[in-house]
Amino acid sequence: MAPASLELRILLVGFGNVARRFARLLGEREAELRGREGLVYQIVGISTGHHGYTFSAWGVDVASALSAREAGQPLPSGTKSAAGNSVEFIRRACAECRDLIVVETTPLDVRSGQPAIDHIRTALEGGADVVTANKGPVAFAYRELQALADGRGRSFLFEGTVMDGIPIFNLVRETLPAVRINAVRGVVNSTTNHILTEMERGKTLDVALREMQQAGIAEADSSLDVEGWDAAAKIAALSNVFLDGQLTPHDVERQGITGITNDDVERAKDKDQRIRLVAEAERHGGGVVARVQPQTLGLDSPLARLVSMQNALILSTDLLGDIAITQLDGGLTQTAYALLSDLVRIARRRRR
Amino acid sequence: MAPASLELRILLVGFGNVARRFARLLGEREAELRGREGLVYQIVGISTGHHGYTFSAWGVDVASALSAREAGQPLPSGTKSAAGNSVEFIRRACAECRDLIVVETTPLDVRSGQPAIDHIRTALEGGADVVTANKGPVAFAYRELQALADGRGRSFLFEGTVMDGIPIFNLVRETLPAVRINAVRGVVNSTTNHILTEMERGKTLDVALREMQQAGIAEADSSLDVEGWDAAAKIAALSNVFLDGQLTPHDVERQGITGITNDDVERAKDKDQRIRLVAEAERHGGGVVARVQPQTLGLDSPLARLVSMQNALILSTDLLGDIAITQLDGGLTQTAYALLSDLVRIARRRRR
Repeated sequence: MAPASLELRILLVGFGNVARRFARLLGEREAELRGREGLVYQIVGISTGHHGYTFSAWGVDVASALSAREAGQPLPSGTKSAAGNSVEFIRRACAECRDLIVVETTPLDVRSGQPAIDHIRTALEGGADVVTANKGPVAFAYRELQALADGRGRSFLFEGTVMDGIPIFNLVRETLPAVRINAVRGVVNSTTNHILTEMERGKTLDVALREMQQAGIAEADSSLDVEGWDAAAKIAALSNVFLDGQLTPHDVERQGITGITNDDVERAKDKDQRIRLVAEAERHGGGVVARVQPQTLGLDSPLARLVSMQNALILSTDLLGDIAITQLDGGLTQTAYALLSDLVRIARRRRR
Repeated sequence: MAPASLELRILLVGFGNVARRFARLLGEREAELRGREGLVYQIVGISTGHHGYTFSAWGVDVASALSAREAGQPLPSGTKSAAGNSVEFIRRACAECRDLIVVETTPLDVRSGQPAIDHIRTALEGGADVVTANKGPVAFAYRELQALADGRGRSFLFEGTVMDGIPIFNLVRETLPAVRINAVRGVVNSTTNHILTEMERGKTLDVALREMQQAGIAEADSSLDVEGWDAAAKIAALSNVFLDGQLTPHDVERQGITGITNDDVERAKDKDQRIRLVAEAERHGGGVVARVQPQTLGLDSPLARLVSMQNALILSTDLLGDIAITQLDGGLTQTAYALLSDLVRIARRRRR
């Protein structure tokens, strides 16, 4: 039996690939959301970086917005005219509409965590729940934002920031009560893992990277991937949430894969080993130590066997020993799904 | 901030290794349960197969019961005299004490699912919530028991039945809303996996099995493990819960590892392959098809690389592709923890 109907009003801050896939996914899963969770939703506003804002408390025309954006045109305007900037837009939307859910997916400056942190702070202060696929806020400002959310009885959820749709944060939060996590270790950057796999097949790093950029998978600024910044942001986020850390990506000892040659990869293969970009963090003397570095691993390591875009994370716990969770298929739909699963979590909390 | 205090009253039905580890674990994690979840608990009764019953609505003396049982002596009697049999004992306890949580861990007849099914039915009918580490009830009577629990607004939880403490059922239930699981595949029996790993090191099946029985790890009735009955019960349980199946272990096509020779294992190794006992199930024409059989797998399979007692399960989903979850360390504490995590889930539900 489905629970009683609950209406969610959603504000999309950022309207890139992830947000658009999310908007479509909501439509595709409308029947399941309504039937199993009793949820109906309205997207009441959209803010983009360069193509304007639209807002209507009655719901915006999402189909038109999707077509406009994919044709490279400005958003069709809503019943409210656009505010001056995205922070102001969020503030006004929260004032206009109670109980908003703000879905934050703007492009990230991985070295500062902005502008996502400002967006999320504004949304929580305005009384909204927040969902983000943006690792910056969790990597740079987890304690502040979580405390802000707790103080206002609101949710700050970020399942899509690490391992796409694999529910790693919810797994720990919802299914591992009274367990202490002592360390985290994994392969969390898909681009570098794909490059290393391609190098095992004889391609050079440069060629493999260029192919991924052309396919739109790797970041245009390749240092985010190959210099380990993305992995550093993710391990900082994991440290802050699971290990009570207070790290930023700048506190993570970081070495990328640019120094790895095809000779290195071949030498490892000859010894039944693989080179993988490993991100790891552990509790150490009241704090947390975290690093990202290429490691040469025997094939008995679950991380060595990850190929192409696969990710995995090993949680070392006090009670359950080691648990590994592996994402065998990742991508845009998975990240969009993470936003959707956080949305359902917020709805379940609101019912209590 | 810890939530307001909530008191749980627990009835232990079965007092073997798992139940006793669970009773101790509750004590070891008392501070976390109280601090993070606001939970306090009383064990109000214990039933054993051959060493009597004890019950007191004020709480029984668990320390004395543990010592008595481990010295092979009958339980110290409680303030109530023991009922005639375990079903009657459960019925009376439920009548005496409202809102009990019955923790069912009696020895299983894997070919019938009894007596656990009768215990759980009686507990749910008496208005208790139920937690079990017993796969029989989920493998033989999932629909009936789940419907009974739903109808009475009670919980029927069984996290410990598959992969010990890995929260596989709660993972799907709590963190994967609106996702459809199309197939499940894994290595779920630790004993046979350990035997196959030992055979790779040159031991014979008989020697490896005998060593595990002497260590108290393998079942005394070796057919439960090596003939695939345990794996069949687990894949039936997974089919019933995840794939809307209505299977019993008898509906699972089943082939054990007794036909595997050291030559077979060696030949596979020469080709960089491993033999593993794989349990798998998939939706098929409105129903579910499930089988357990030894499979020869390349080292690119995550299942091939499981050694010793490791387990893994791969969920094939419509939205997220394949997700693998691996238990790198299993055992008694993990199974006891599964009972504890289900207990916390029930407490969280009661608060709503």
